[in-house]
Amino acid sequence: MEIPIGRARKARQTFGFDDVALVPGATTLDPKDVDLTCELATLRLDLPLLASAMDAVVDVRSATVLAELGGLGVLHLEGLQCRYEDPDPLLERIAAASAEEAVTVIQQAYQEPLKNHLVERRVAELKEKGAKVAVSPTPIFAQRAAEIIGPGNIDALFILATVTTARHISSRYQSPDFKRLADQVQAPVFVGNCVSYQAALELMRAGADGILVGVGPGAACTTRRVLGIGVPQVTAAADCAAARDDFETETGKRVPIILDGGMRVGGDIAKAIAAGADAVMIGSPLAAAEEAPGRGYHWGMATSHMGLPRGTRIHVGTSGPMKQILLGPAKRDDGTLNLFGALRLSMSCCGAKNIREMQQAEIVVAPAMPTEGKALQRAQGVGGTR
Amino acid sequence: MEIPIGRARKARQTFGFDDVALVPGATTLDPKDVDLTCELATLRLDLPLLASAMDAVVDVRSATVLAELGGLGVLHLEGLQCRYEDPDPLLERIAAASAEEAVTVIQQAYQEPLKNHLVERRVAELKEKGAKVAVSPTPIFAQRAAEIIGPGNIDALFILATVTTARHISSRYQSPDFKRLADQVQAPVFVGNCVSYQAALELMRAGADGILVGVGPGAACTTRRVLGIGVPQVTAAADCAAARDDFETETGKRVPIILDGGMRVGGDIAKAIAAGADAVMIGSPLAAAEEAPGRGYHWGMATSHMGLPRGTRIHVGTSGPMKQILLGPAKRDDGTLNLFGALRLSMSCCGAKNIREMQQAEIVVAPAMPTEGKALQRAQGVGGTR
Amino acid sequence: MEIPIGRARKARQTFGFDDVALVPGATTLDPKDVDLTCELATLRLDLPLLASAMDAVVDVRSATVLAELGGLGVLHLEGLQCRYEDPDPLLERIAAASAEEAVTVIQQAYQEPLKNHLVERRVAELKEKGAKVAVSPTPIFAQRAAEIIGPGNIDALFILATVTTARHISSRYQSPDFKRLADQVQAPVFVGNCVSYQAALELMRAGADGILVGVGPGAACTTRRVLGIGVPQVTAAADCAAARDDFETETGKRVPIILDGGMRVGGDIAKAIAAGADAVMIGSPLAAAEEAPGRGYHWGMATSHMGLPRGTRIHVGTSGPMKQILLGPAKRDDGTLNLFGALRLSMSCCGAKNIREMQQAEIVVAPAMPTEGKALQRAQGVGGTR
Amino acid sequence: MEIPIGRARKARQTFGFDDVALVPGATTLDPKDVDLTCELATLRLDLPLLASAMDAVVDVRSATVLAELGGLGVLHLEGLQCRYEDPDPLLERIAAASAEEAVTVIQQAYQEPLKNHLVERRVAELKEKGAKVAVSPTPIFAQRAAEIIGPGNIDALFILATVTTARHISSRYQSPDFKRLADQVQAPVFVGNCVSYQAALELMRAGADGILVGVGPGAACTTRRVLGIGVPQVTAAADCAAARDDFETETGKRVPIILDGGMRVGGDIAKAIAAGADAVMIGSPLAAAEEAPGRGYHWGMATSHMGLPRGTRIHVGTSGPMKQILLGPAKRDDGTLNLFGALRLSMSCCGAKNIREMQQAEIVVAPAMPTEGKALQRAQGVGGTR
Repeated sequence: MEIPIGRARKARQTFGFDDVALVPGATTLDPKDVDLTCELATLRLDLPLLASAMDAVVDVRSATVLAELGGLGVLHLEGLQCRYEDPDPLLERIAAASAEEAVTVIQQAYQEPLKNHLVERRVAELKEKGAKVAVSPTPIFAQRAAEIIGPGNIDALFILATVTTARHISSRYQSPDFKRLADQVQAPVFVGNCVSYQAALELMRAGADGILVGVGPGAACTTRRVLGIGVPQVTAAADCAAARDDFETETGKRVPIILDGGMRVGGDIAKAIAAGADAVMIGSPLAAAEEAPGRGYHWGMATSHMGLPRGTRIHVGTSGPMKQILLGPAKRDDGTLNLFGALRLSMSCCGAKNIREMQQAEIVVAPAMPTEGKALQRAQGVGGTR
Repeated sequence: MEIPIGRARKARQTFGFDDVALVPGATTLDPKDVDLTCELATLRLDLPLLASAMDAVVDVRSATVLAELGGLGVLHLEGLQCRYEDPDPLLERIAAASAEEAVTVIQQAYQEPLKNHLVERRVAELKEKGAKVAVSPTPIFAQRAAEIIGPGNIDALFILATVTTARHISSRYQSPDFKRLADQVQAPVFVGNCVSYQAALELMRAGADGILVGVGPGAACTTRRVLGIGVPQVTAAADCAAARDDFETETGKRVPIILDGGMRVGGDIAKAIAAGADAVMIGSPLAAAEEAPGRGYHWGMATSHMGLPRGTRIHVGTSGPMKQILLGPAKRDDGTLNLFGALRLSMSCCGAKNIREMQQAEIVVAPAMPTEGKALQRAQGVGGTR
Repeated sequence: MEIPIGRARKARQTFGFDDVALVPGATTLDPKDVDLTCELATLRLDLPLLASAMDAVVDVRSATVLAELGGLGVLHLEGLQCRYEDPDPLLERIAAASAEEAVTVIQQAYQEPLKNHLVERRVAELKEKGAKVAVSPTPIFAQRAAEIIGPGNIDALFILATVTTARHISSRYQSPDFKRLADQVQAPVFVGNCVSYQAALELMRAGADGILVGVGPGAACTTRRVLGIGVPQVTAAADCAAARDDFETETGKRVPIILDGGMRVGGDIAKAIAAGADAVMIGSPLAAAEEAPGRGYHWGMATSHMGLPRGTRIHVGTSGPMKQILLGPAKRDDGTLNLFGALRLSMSCCGAKNIREMQQAEIVVAPAMPTEGKALQRAQGVGGTR
Repeated sequence: MEIPIGRARKARQTFGFDDVALVPGATTLDPKDVDLTCELATLRLDLPLLASAMDAVVDVRSATVLAELGGLGVLHLEGLQCRYEDPDPLLERIAAASAEEAVTVIQQAYQEPLKNHLVERRVAELKEKGAKVAVSPTPIFAQRAAEIIGPGNIDALFILATVTTARHISSRYQSPDFKRLADQVQAPVFVGNCVSYQAALELMRAGADGILVGVGPGAACTTRRVLGIGVPQVTAAADCAAARDDFETETGKRVPIILDGGMRVGGDIAKAIAAGADAVMIGSPLAAAEEAPGRGYHWGMATSHMGLPRGTRIHVGTSGPMKQILLGPAKRDDGTLNLFGALRLSMSCCGAKNIREMQQAEIVVAPAMPTEGKALQRAQGVGGTR
């Protein structure tokens, strides 16, 4: 449905998590009978969860914990972990910075050059821990990264930038060849981010084994403000899921859609799957884990850009161990704990036995109700502690 | 009207109380000539009012007061009243808890096992007071509860869960048979909650004598945030009322629709009836009564869930005796007192002689006006007392 | 355009002042060439302005000032002015009350019985001052009021209630006969309030010489919250203007539409006229005049209802003499001063020479911009004085 | 798409910056390959940037800096610069005024009469600095200003008022003849402001060489509140761009559209171009430059109106040198620094090589996301400095 926004100019209406809600099914299930496993190319996960390739979320330690819980942490190969032998002092400095100096401190920390031997070492450390190994370079670094990694050492390669297309044009460098990279590392290649049907379809045709969907939605992301660019996640998920389905019809290959960013609570994850995602990639909710490297803070990787930072540092606090965040039990009622217990219960209310059935759940347009957030505010206002 | 929310994906637009307003009729009535009585299966009430089966709202004492005023209190059979001989110390503890520890205190209080003899005793106490007896088990406990209650001791049985369908599937237990339960207790069986036409119709076909409508709207409810599930109440009421009307056409039996949750002021109740409800079930506005067990606090029954609390404790204060809340006189102008005097006046302005005529009142889409709330804020800001 | 709000249920979308904006014309005028005069039945005013029949706005003194400036003050015949020989102490008490006790103080003040000799005296005082005399009883008191007033003593009679219809049904009393009343007082009879095409048309057919339009919009009004009733003013104006135009086509008689309530700034008045109103009736902006009886406060007449107050007391402050509020010069930039200088300039930008042309100005749907209010907040935040 | 807003009354839905977002392209570009130059009549600029003809933004010094950076500052010929030999003490006084007295201080400052020799001198000073000379009179002063300026001394004449039409009617004075003025000063004449297709087209037909688009959107503008008039900028840009395209088809002459006002961050500028603008005119973001005359404050020129001020003084602070605001590097992540670095990156994500291609970028309707602003608020809340 295109709406005229001016003479001779139309625009589609788009929708985000706060614009929609799920309708309980006419059938309901016992939550114990719900299956949360998901298949992403050759990967099989117990939870449809990837942790963002962000320095406040994933290091070797948190990736190992995530793997034990059934998810997958993606280590950023151009982050602090591959710039410093010991990134802890830097992480401390970022956490200790005042709000005013945070961006500058982050910009400086990322000035330290990337070190090939650290890329190699982090991959080795992950492999050693027995966790599934997933790492992420940007498109420009992808070819070099694949060579450093070598064949058979990782389980998945994520080639990520704010916006990635199969038709990037530069007078300075060449775009990566996804199929060749997959051959080199002998693992599926996930590519992102994109938000439109056309861009997703072209990435699939160019050989991507999975697609990351999301431009501008994250809690620590200011892309929409700085660049004006972004598509709300429910529409982005539905559009790219349509590309997945059309591509599957066309070729028989199912390229999974991973919705990346903007999910804060269990309800958002349920909506993401219902909108068509095969899995979700989340950052800020996991940065609040005791095992997360961020020490109660979270920042976007684009925050470090020297000329035009497009992310910010946010305070997320520490809400408990990763296990409690993902699987409970929740001691809080604000939806930030037991994210996948919530997904399980939500699916049972929608009568969805598994992820594929949840992708058919009924969605309604229902702007976030005032009471939704106010109940919590009122509750918290009483004791005044938080 | 389905709106495209993404490629190959549509969603209906839905509406809540704050999205609509009522249009005065071309005929108006003297408020004294308005009839507020309602019929719910075999029950006849002077007011179209049920009090929520929540521990902060209904105990034997408040149910008795509600009955005297013309409404009906529903006692939760799995709440504190049936777990403790004397629940007062627990209610005190919940009211005294800090905002931070409230959920934990509630979770602990509900760990005490349910006691069959207390179920029996509360039913007997209600009967003794001469009040209409309405009690509520969850679906899993319903069969056992009916056996404890026995035949002829109650006036209505409410089988309630967050989402209830006629087609619940579990590998662990069996869904209750509504008709058999009604026979056992010799009283009508009300079932809920649901929000869609299909689910309501199927519950009617499965033998429900009344339907509770509402998933996620309550002031102390965080279902929409935690699970992503919920349908705004005006649309839910209209959808389920359509099921009621179609079922009546089909079978000749009128199964009343009780809109449950999300109403805070008189205007919300008027909108609920206009949207198609036969009666309303309210919680937080009654928790503020002097006779309510909540001591100025209110919490959802799902708050006590150990793994995934889906409600919160809110401070509602104490605004006056139950009689003043329901029938006035109001000494405040914020719509929270004299709820049914307000309904009466609203119906007179809409030219509706009775509930059935009010169900035809004209509704318009009219987002809550800024001045609506601001007038009160401004007023309250001056003296600063509240 | 009716929108489905639920199965088998539709509702029209409605619009208020904050939802729309005016488009400058393709022709513009010199503001000096704009004519603001208006004709309301047999009345001709220099400004299309009536002051609300509210005790904080109109007494003999402020009505006289309003008449000198080109507007018309309407004195409420059932307000404090006709209950007390000297209402000043009561007005003082209301202004001095704390926010918490304000409603109670107002309720008590209006317990004093109405006095026929004071009705007579206030009419005489107004006449003596040479001002146009406009007074307002409620429908129940209208017949008795007309007898007290007698023939030839007033210029206009306003019969006002929250909602007035030509088909009011009561088992206790009879509705007033507008034509007979007009004959008795020998002056046009204005009737209100209504908000729908049908109700307006029927009031015209029943003999009303002018129609007051507005249910629930006022700054001191809580009707929408308490009763759920109200139609946003832009839609109400357009609907009732259509009734006016159809009635004029049908009978040749033009019954003017006076939009009553909800206007706070010059822009709102311009939108009211553009939506179809022949004149506006405003309250709270005039209660802030030095000559207003409210002493910096304003309250709805329905605030005094003992059982169900449907208005509140708001603090409006004192912003200057009535002349400055209506005609400037403005020393503030928030739109609350020089209301009719603003209307004149707005009309010149829309290329409208007079009120009738302004009723054709182009309206767009344009939700109030964040910057609109924020500019002022930011400005005021700097010095912190206000 | 016209929406019924009342019986027999329709209105178009309009859109502003916060209502829309841009969709990344299916092709992306290396930002280094993006061309930001723009052509405005005979002017060629390195950046599509004009600085508002406002006293807090443009004086000889800041215009010179702007020219060096590739933009164009427009000096207001009726501002303080042409009323006072030395405007510094006045600018100091305005900056030092309390929020309460700011409007009065501004009104007084502009009471000093305009001086012809100062008009002449400012033009000479600009020319001397080697900067492109752009100056702005109001329509009434335009003819006299052209005579003072003389032929060949300026590069562009901007004739600006809140609303300007080709068919202004006044019984007191005559509208300016754009073609004659262009001949007199031997430079292109830019005219504004307008917001509709019809008004823009008529100004083009009347000889305007460029059109300024925007009524009511600016940060320091209260036109929408005071007059009720205004069209959100995305719709205004699209409508006037359609007039430009139709006029070009009709005559072969391309009259550029400059979107004036309401842009605060890089994303807004990107949306302005995507909506059809050839360049932008911005005020408040530049008033925060170290070189700006406003000393951390900004005010609308209409603030000085004695009878009806329609602007306000806002605090913008000082965020860095003009170069950093326009071209970075940004040390903040809120989108207010490196505005044109942001535009370059945004264009690269949309696959737009130049301004003309960016005018075809895909726009979606996507209300500003809560997280968009909240991320920053949260970040800033931590250290508490700002």
